[in-house]
Amino acid sequence: MRTRAAVALEAGKPLEIMEVNLEGPKAGEVLVEIKATGICHTDDFTRSGADPEGIFPSILGHEGAGVVVEVGPGVTTVKPGDHVIPLYTPECRQCASCLSGKTNLCTAIRATQGQGLMPDGTTRFSMLDGTPIMHYMGCSTFSNYTVLPEIAVAKVREDAPFDKICYIGCGVTTGIGAVINTAKVEIGAKAVVFGLGGIGLNVIQGLRLAGADMIIGVDLNPDKKPMAERFGMTHFINPREVDNVVQEIVSMTKTPFDQIGGADYTFDCTGNVTVMRQALESAHRGWGQSIVIGVAPAGAEISTRPFQLVTGRVWKGSAFGGARGRTDVPKIVDWYMDGKIEIDPMITHTLKLEDINKGFDLMHSGESIRSVVIY
Amino acid sequence: MRTRAAVALEAGKPLEIMEVNLEGPKAGEVLVEIKATGICHTDDFTRSGADPEGIFPSILGHEGAGVVVEVGPGVTTVKPGDHVIPLYTPECRQCASCLSGKTNLCTAIRATQGQGLMPDGTTRFSMLDGTPIMHYMGCSTFSNYTVLPEIAVAKVREDAPFDKICYIGCGVTTGIGAVINTAKVEIGAKAVVFGLGGIGLNVIQGLRLAGADMIIGVDLNPDKKPMAERFGMTHFINPREVDNVVQEIVSMTKTPFDQIGGADYTFDCTGNVTVMRQALESAHRGWGQSIVIGVAPAGAEISTRPFQLVTGRVWKGSAFGGARGRTDVPKIVDWYMDGKIEIDPMITHTLKLEDINKGFDLMHSGESIRSVVIY
Ligand SMILES: NC(=O)c1ccc[n+]([C@@H]2O[C@H](COP(=O)([O-])OP(=O)(O)OC[C@H]3O[C@@H](n4cnc5c(N)ncnc54)[C@H](O)[C@@H]3O)[C@@H](O)[C@H]2O)c1
Ligand SMILES: NC(=O)c1ccc[n+]([C@@H]2O[C@H](COP(=O)([O-])OP(=O)(O)OC[C@H]3O[C@@H](n4cnc5c(N)ncnc54)[C@H](O)[C@@H]3O)[C@@H](O)[C@H]2O)c1
Ligand SMILES: [Zn+2]
Ligand SMILES: [Zn+2]
Ligand SMILES: [Zn+2]
Ligand SMILES: [Zn+2]
Repeated sequence: MRTRAAVALEAGKPLEIMEVNLEGPKAGEVLVEIKATGICHTDDFTRSGADPEGIFPSILGHEGAGVVVEVGPGVTTVKPGDHVIPLYTPECRQCASCLSGKTNLCTAIRATQGQGLMPDGTTRFSMLDGTPIMHYMGCSTFSNYTVLPEIAVAKVREDAPFDKICYIGCGVTTGIGAVINTAKVEIGAKAVVFGLGGIGLNVIQGLRLAGADMIIGVDLNPDKKPMAERFGMTHFINPREVDNVVQEIVSMTKTPFDQIGGADYTFDCTGNVTVMRQALESAHRGWGQSIVIGVAPAGAEISTRPFQLVTGRVWKGSAFGGARGRTDVPKIVDWYMDGKIEIDPMITHTLKLEDINKGFDLMHSGESIRSVVIY
Repeated sequence: MRTRAAVALEAGKPLEIMEVNLEGPKAGEVLVEIKATGICHTDDFTRSGADPEGIFPSILGHEGAGVVVEVGPGVTTVKPGDHVIPLYTPECRQCASCLSGKTNLCTAIRATQGQGLMPDGTTRFSMLDGTPIMHYMGCSTFSNYTVLPEIAVAKVREDAPFDKICYIGCGVTTGIGAVINTAKVEIGAKAVVFGLGGIGLNVIQGLRLAGADMIIGVDLNPDKKPMAERFGMTHFINPREVDNVVQEIVSMTKTPFDQIGGADYTFDCTGNVTVMRQALESAHRGWGQSIVIGVAPAGAEISTRPFQLVTGRVWKGSAFGGARGRTDVPKIVDWYMDGKIEIDPMITHTLKLEDINKGFDLMHSGESIRSVVIY
């Protein structure tokens, strides 16, 4: 078949809207009509050429929602008509990682996915002249129709709006999941969120959901404050207005009983390695955990004195919020539909596929929290 | 009273054996006759002048065992005649840290202890000419008699030999505790121990006790192999004999089912920051934990790409094995007396106080695992 897609032809260039060929699903694969897709920083990381593992030409996009149109041989868990969210972190439930019960990082199709291919080592997309086009993060939601492995779709309820729940395919789950699955924040905790973009806001609402007492937000841009407060931030620090962010956090979290100070949990949602260090060092001596969510530039390294760890701080990271996609994503959709979490105020812009490059501009200017393309 | 002690008069100099004055215990303090004390790297770190927080003159030593001789007003938990192990990490059971239930790093007397003083801000030791001598890590076990806060002694059974259980005051608990309390290693785990000195050997026997399947030891010195095997090491790597230690560990830990590889738990027992990075990076993607035990030189920093954490590795540290001294140390003494753990083969040398500087020489030459001074 043919489908309309925004294609990344070369690193650093705007995406090009064009018709492409799409082969139908092979064994264990499904064809999905994408109804809406968010535009995430990770797409831009690859589009811009900053990602050393970027492959071109490819069809980016990994934050979608849509409807199953056709299934390949052997597919048993979804059928045409099912509403699904594509998963860049699949959940096969059979590999050593899935069965460990200790990680969401399924490795069943990792090698081929990293090469822009379906599990059989081939691509379903091609130019009209036959040139192969690579898949991206196993999803390629910047195409109106796409093919995905069965293990890489989460079946979700049918009354949920595509243009909102697509965001659960990455940002929402990443932020909320880091709180719930990775940090396992408990009621009454004190937490700090560095970076109040889309990921940071979702960490904040995850903290509110988990019952945190103190939710300190840190951002260089004070315009981020009102929205963060709306999602549950209780205190705000602009690093430019204090001498030392770490000391400021330590002071704010002291109590008459606890004169040590420091946060129980801190989250980096900036991708800046200097901030990651601040996040670790503002965690409480003895037990504070710091969770890296942000993706750093290629080659950047984090560092600290090992004494920070020896005195009880824990340095962790979180990918896709530690969520097992097929198991946890449908639950997060339910939370949204039940009003436990909010998504609507974070979808600041909706666009047509033709205008997708405007979505990247809005991201760069910091105007959008999330732009969503509606097909 | 007067007591005989090995005094550190100046950084970088050998200790000097001399008579010193010792005031009796004040409120909340106990006077202990030290019967035996180990000589630990941390003592040498301070003695040598490498410790930027070292204070002189002081009486070093923090790995002792002895008998309570006298108690100050208000002391209720020990009495004269009780056998005790001094605790450089006290356990007050009342501060924010103790009551958190999440850390062993009691902070009740941290500030004064760090300054070489008893909790009331004064020192009990002085030269015969009246010059004050500082306490060290709240213990000063290189003095035949010493004064300690009540919260800094663990009462232990009376049939346990002082010249062996003194080692539980630091090395044994540090190693075994890092496995049990900090990493919480489970039966069947695969673990790597970097550095097969006294701490590494105790990590190894902790792993054996916890039921680990694979215990890989890494040391530049192949002479360390037989003793490590005796304590439970199952595989040995000499970093000089392989291209890349991390790759070697990843290969060794792969199975037909798990083609990712990496250890469930890794422990740095070297204090070398390059090794700490190797330890983190040889932990299993998705869930591997790396525990820093070694103490790095002043100013040294650890670093890695944050991607190592985002893909599920956890970086932790451990001080005094995460053990709550008054609660856990008596249990470890029981384990030794019951034959669950071994100490005797690790006490390679016993010395008289007069020969204490020989203990430091044996440490430097790598001949000793542990030298113990018997008073
Ligand atoms: N781990 C994962 O699974 C995962 C998934 C999605 C996105 N991410 C990453 O999460 C990060 C955040 O994404 P986002 O969409 O929220 O980005 P964003 O650009 O919308 O938000 C980043 C925020 O950080 C603030 N900031 C930048 N430098 C700062 C500093 N030095 N101190 C304080 N604040 C600072 C910015 O002002 C901005 O508000 C990105 O690195 C992204 O790649 C990770
Ligand atoms: N965290 C704590 O509570 C605590 C308590 C006591 C001691 N320590 C620290 O633990 C560390 C180990 O103490 P120890 O008494 O076992 O020391 P040790 O010197 O007896 O043993 C260190 C071992 O590491 C090996 N080694 C050195 N460099 C290496 C490398 N690059 N690769 C592999 N092996 C290497 C040496 O050959 C030696 O066998 C020290 O740094 C000490 O200060 C920490
Ligand atoms: Zn994303
Ligand atoms: Zn899997
Ligand atoms: Zn020690
Ligand atoms: Zn305490």
